[in-house]
Amino acid sequence: MAADVTKDTIHDTIAKKLDVTGHLSATSATANVIKLADLGCSVGPNTLASIHDLIHVIKQKHPSTSQLEFQVFFNDLPSNDFNALFRSLPLPADGGRGYFAAGVPGSFHGRLFPASSLHVVQLYYSIHWLSAAPKGPPANRGRIHYAGASGAVLEAYKAQWGEDMGRFLAARAAEVVAGGMVLVVGPSIPDGMPYSRLANGIMFDCMASILLDLARQGMIKEEEVDAFNLPIYAPLPGDIEAAVTKNGQFTIEAMGLNNPAPWLTEGVHVDMVEFTGHIRAAMEGMFLSHFPSHVVGILFDRLAVMMSELSEEMESAYKDKIQVYFVLCRK
Amino acid sequence: MAADVTKDTIHDTIAKKLDVTGHLSATSATANVIKLADLGCSVGPNTLASIHDLIHVIKQKHPSTSQLEFQVFFNDLPSNDFNALFRSLPLPADGGRGYFAAGVPGSFHGRLFPASSLHVVQLYYSIHWLSAAPKGPPANRGRIHYAGASGAVLEAYKAQWGEDMGRFLAARAAEVVAGGMVLVVGPSIPDGMPYSRLANGIMFDCMASILLDLARQGMIKEEEVDAFNLPIYAPLPGDIEAAVTKNGQFTIEAMGLNNPAPWLTEGVHVDMVEFTGHIRAAMEGMFLSHFPSHVVGILFDRLAVMMSELSEEMESAYKDKIQVYFVLCRK
Repeated sequence: MAADVTKDTIHDTIAKKLDVTGHLSATSATANVIKLADLGCSVGPNTLASIHDLIHVIKQKHPSTSQLEFQVFFNDLPSNDFNALFRSLPLPADGGRGYFAAGVPGSFHGRLFPASSLHVVQLYYSIHWLSAAPKGPPANRGRIHYAGASGAVLEAYKAQWGEDMGRFLAARAAEVVAGGMVLVVGPSIPDGMPYSRLANGIMFDCMASILLDLARQGMIKEEEVDAFNLPIYAPLPGDIEAAVTKNGQFTIEAMGLNNPAPWLTEGVHVDMVEFTGHIRAAMEGMFLSHFPSHVVGILFDRLAVMMSELSEEMESAYKDKIQVYFVLCRK
Repeated sequence: MAADVTKDTIHDTIAKKLDVTGHLSATSATANVIKLADLGCSVGPNTLASIHDLIHVIKQKHPSTSQLEFQVFFNDLPSNDFNALFRSLPLPADGGRGYFAAGVPGSFHGRLFPASSLHVVQLYYSIHWLSAAPKGPPANRGRIHYAGASGAVLEAYKAQWGEDMGRFLAARAAEVVAGGMVLVVGPSIPDGMPYSRLANGIMFDCMASILLDLARQGMIKEEEVDAFNLPIYAPLPGDIEAAVTKNGQFTIEAMGLNNPAPWLTEGVHVDMVEFTGHIRAAMEGMFLSHFPSHVVGILFDRLAVMMSELSEEMESAYKDKIQVYFVLCRK
């Protein structure tokens, strides 16, 4: 048939003329392209700002910046709103933006890119997302998270994070060129600090308490609350060191804990209603997959009120060194 | 501030340790990655099937396929539904799908990728999209397209396509490695065939006639119809040769015209209501940016009826050699 004639002709031409093993790979090697990836980018402007900063640093270091081209890969799960992300990109690609952009759908716990194809990978506040809530965690009555829970629940979370981080590092070890880097900033906790004092811990406790109230009112079952566990774990610096050592293909070039919100002072406060709005945007989907939508609506409405009442406690928690950064270099 | 300390520490580490000019580009050269791009991919399954075929051909040609990795870039305008496209991708990235996928938002009339970074580029039914309707075209009374219009209108369309194709080829010449290829299949017209006999010409005539009826009923102004011109041009093989020659950086390896629907026989027909539904999905947006939505609704409802009445004429048009294919090789 004629349609197949077209296809056959095109394919014959490729088969005859395209020299995959020869000059193609040699030619592409001469390209002076720096490839960056932001994993778990979501749709927000924070990602674009950090990419802009990163490119600036690399250009500053490199004396002949005019020769360099940058390609940036924005990754998140296929459920992310890439349409919104793409609409928010500066334009044009070859002018003001300063880099070529691409979106990559998929989980960063697995491979996303060809081997040795990335120079710098960054994750801002995405390394704490687990691939799933810990499988078969011990009973976690009246809670939706490990903060304040039994040691066995904490261990189940820690084990899940370690497993996820192992797969993350194995995938990145394949994708990042030798000498390339992985930059991570995200939630953490200092050794010895009780998890219940984490700002997220306080908030998740409030969520659980609202859900239990709704269970008492018969809107949901208490067992549904017990069975629901948020797939979020704030790793300790020691967890990170252990994972990197186990993987064996990266060196830790820098690592530390700090205060994520130094701008929070006696005179500057957080609008907790607005804060709860952001939390809702990020987390609503997880609740909606377990609870009816009217229950989730009530949950976040009540959470906004409760967070406002606890604003001092929340702000105090944010003054601790609960943010970790680390820089890995591919051996 | 502590937040800046994090950023500064990370950036210092990059500046000290990331060796951009040295071993990074050397290492990436060893990667055995074939990079393909589908430009104007929309959201449809046709794109995925053609990419699958293309990879199969390249693997068949290459004896040691296990060493090859494929990365596929799906491009369309930022207004395309990339969320739908990403949800339709086969999973997982490193397993059954056989390639790493990325979405690239932007116009293929400009640069989309770093220099010398692509091996094969394909366009299936997207080369006929103009960057815009011809600017300041001569009066085109009672028509929304060049088919059946005055020679001056046709020349304005042809000039716009030539300009767009010039920018397209310049961008691809930069992006495709030497020896790499550009494959195109799309609407065309044989030399000497009147444009009014094109299936699209028949359909656009129907659209114009419905819009003029609505103008007579006072729902829109006749001048609005006259001023609206669809940004679509079916290039002749001669148009393509002229553009490629003018650009000078590609050779034409194969080129021909054929019948786009050889499966249309006496016994097999097109459901014109379904056909109009596909047309509506693809073209509705262009009409909505010029006409009120209720007018566009009526337009496509009436078009479905009119197309059913003209199904024989439409099918007859599709039996002509109105599809062009060409294969370019980067010098």
